[in-house]
Amino acid sequence: MDVPLTLAALGEDALVERLVGLLPVAGGAVVEGPGDDCAIVEGASSGDWSLLKADAVVEGVHFVPGENMARVGWKALCRAISDVAAMGGLPLHALVSVTAAPETPWTQLRDLYRGLAKAARTYEVAVVGGETTHSNGPLVCSVFLTGRVEPGRCVRRSGGRPGDVLLVTGRLGGSFQSGHHLDFKPRLAEARWLTAHFLPTAMMDLSDGLSKDGPRLARASGCGLELELEALPRRRGCSVEAACADGEDFEMLLAVCPDRVEGLLADWKRAFPRVPLTRVGRLLEAGEGLRPRATFNLRGYDHFQ
Amino acid sequence: MDVPLTLAALGEDALVERLVGLLPVAGGAVVEGPGDDCAIVEGASSGDWSLLKADAVVEGVHFVPGENMARVGWKALCRAISDVAAMGGLPLHALVSVTAAPETPWTQLRDLYRGLAKAARTYEVAVVGGETTHSNGPLVCSVFLTGRVEPGRCVRRSGGRPGDVLLVTGRLGGSFQSGHHLDFKPRLAEARWLTAHFLPTAMMDLSDGLSKDGPRLARASGCGLELELEALPRRRGCSVEAACADGEDFEMLLAVCPDRVEGLLADWKRAFPRVPLTRVGRLLEAGEGLRPRATFNLRGYDHFQ
Repeated sequence: MDVPLTLAALGEDALVERLVGLLPVAGGAVVEGPGDDCAIVEGASSGDWSLLKADAVVEGVHFVPGENMARVGWKALCRAISDVAAMGGLPLHALVSVTAAPETPWTQLRDLYRGLAKAARTYEVAVVGGETTHSNGPLVCSVFLTGRVEPGRCVRRSGGRPGDVLLVTGRLGGSFQSGHHLDFKPRLAEARWLTAHFLPTAMMDLSDGLSKDGPRLARASGCGLELELEALPRRRGCSVEAACADGEDFEMLLAVCPDRVEGLLADWKRAFPRVPLTRVGRLLEAGEGLRPRATFNLRGYDHFQ
Repeated sequence: MDVPLTLAALGEDALVERLVGLLPVAGGAVVEGPGDDCAIVEGASSGDWSLLKADAVVEGVHFVPGENMARVGWKALCRAISDVAAMGGLPLHALVSVTAAPETPWTQLRDLYRGLAKAARTYEVAVVGGETTHSNGPLVCSVFLTGRVEPGRCVRRSGGRPGDVLLVTGRLGGSFQSGHHLDFKPRLAEARWLTAHFLPTAMMDLSDGLSKDGPRLARASGCGLELELEALPRRRGCSVEAACADGEDFEMLLAVCPDRVEGLLADWKRAFPRVPLTRVGRLLEAGEGLRPRATFNLRGYDHFQ
């Protein structure tokens, strides 16, 4: 008898590819369907594009049971804001969908919503609705976020070209252990500054680790990839491997035309003196494949493996 | 020692009221925040308003484990479409967020997405993105749906006036037992016809049972409520109490100015000869409270009790 193919055996990327293949994704003024940090649709009265993002945090996966729920709420909304930032956009409206057990203390949801509210006020998001449902499983908080972006400032994963230099904001690694994943600040101001001054050819936010997300950006751009792993900006106490594979960094990974990199690095230092911007590799011709300059295997976070 | 207040002790409506009170819901061109079937925001280039809805189905709550997942997918999207219909709108774009255990067979998610895709094609919705996350709890499928509505055809829960007649489409009760909840057709065409010809003063979709949702519409409109429970259009084999309290009907409950009711009923019969439209009560002055004309207690579905 055949053993059924499980989600774990399939892995996250293959699963998503198969699922997307089943869906009607075109029509209705869709500029960009599944596959980027956000979907893009036409429609805002200003001529801006609308951005749409869904993102969930699950108890036992994205936070440990007993965690301070205000920090979980902050994370839940800021993850989605980070995705809007990665498209070059600004967040607008959120809906929050929570599934929780009936015996959950009220104070847990109160604190979750206080954290959501704090993030919403900080980044000027209006939380316009949502719903609560019971389950007997772990607490799940799904955030749906809309945003807007001027078409001329929209940055996708797919725009990178061979030779483009890859850079990352901030420092990588150990986010879960250090608690950074619960109080990170989405790189909204930084991304908006980038699209105003040095429009990257491609950009995405790092949620599953550079070793997983880097190849995703390269593939989306139809390019090969060389990562200079020893150069990675690491969080204190992190190995290169941890910086590469831990995930939950919520930093920006961007591709920039090589002749603009020096100017960018100089101007960046003046604009964001406390946030490193570090060269971590470059895009190659597609035929050149993936070239990690390191001795260990690349891996990253996979939701089903 | 104080016993902690649980979600079950609080109940769904009180929980939602408390949570909404914590959130920044204004700003950003918000026309209507939490509390109606959908949120309303400004922004579409045509001058239309945008509708935003989040809705989840949970294994063990909205469908039994082992259920045909294609039917679950149909339900997951159609629930949200029903909410857009209840505002008088048309659905546009959906995101789907699924949380599933790693050992879930691939075919379950495939079938879920086939059902989502069938509903999306039927009602011309583009599924533009989403995400998959693992958990060790029940399968959760959250749907985020956008829609649009002409401001002059938008119907809220809050527009009802004392004296307005309440009507429901279709038949009520036994939806879960009969399987209707898995293959119902959202009343999109019917609601659009209503807003074109007999703009209701208030409308909502019935998901938690008329005995729970009727008072919600009355409260939102600042009215009292009289329900003629014996007149309820019941699904075959259902008691009055079941028709009133079972929930998952996804029929429209609407309020109409009394002098337009006769004309509406006559025209409706020609437009939708196979769908009953039945008078089930009326709105009262606020001071008159709730008057069920029946001998049993009103109850309905509560997610936490």
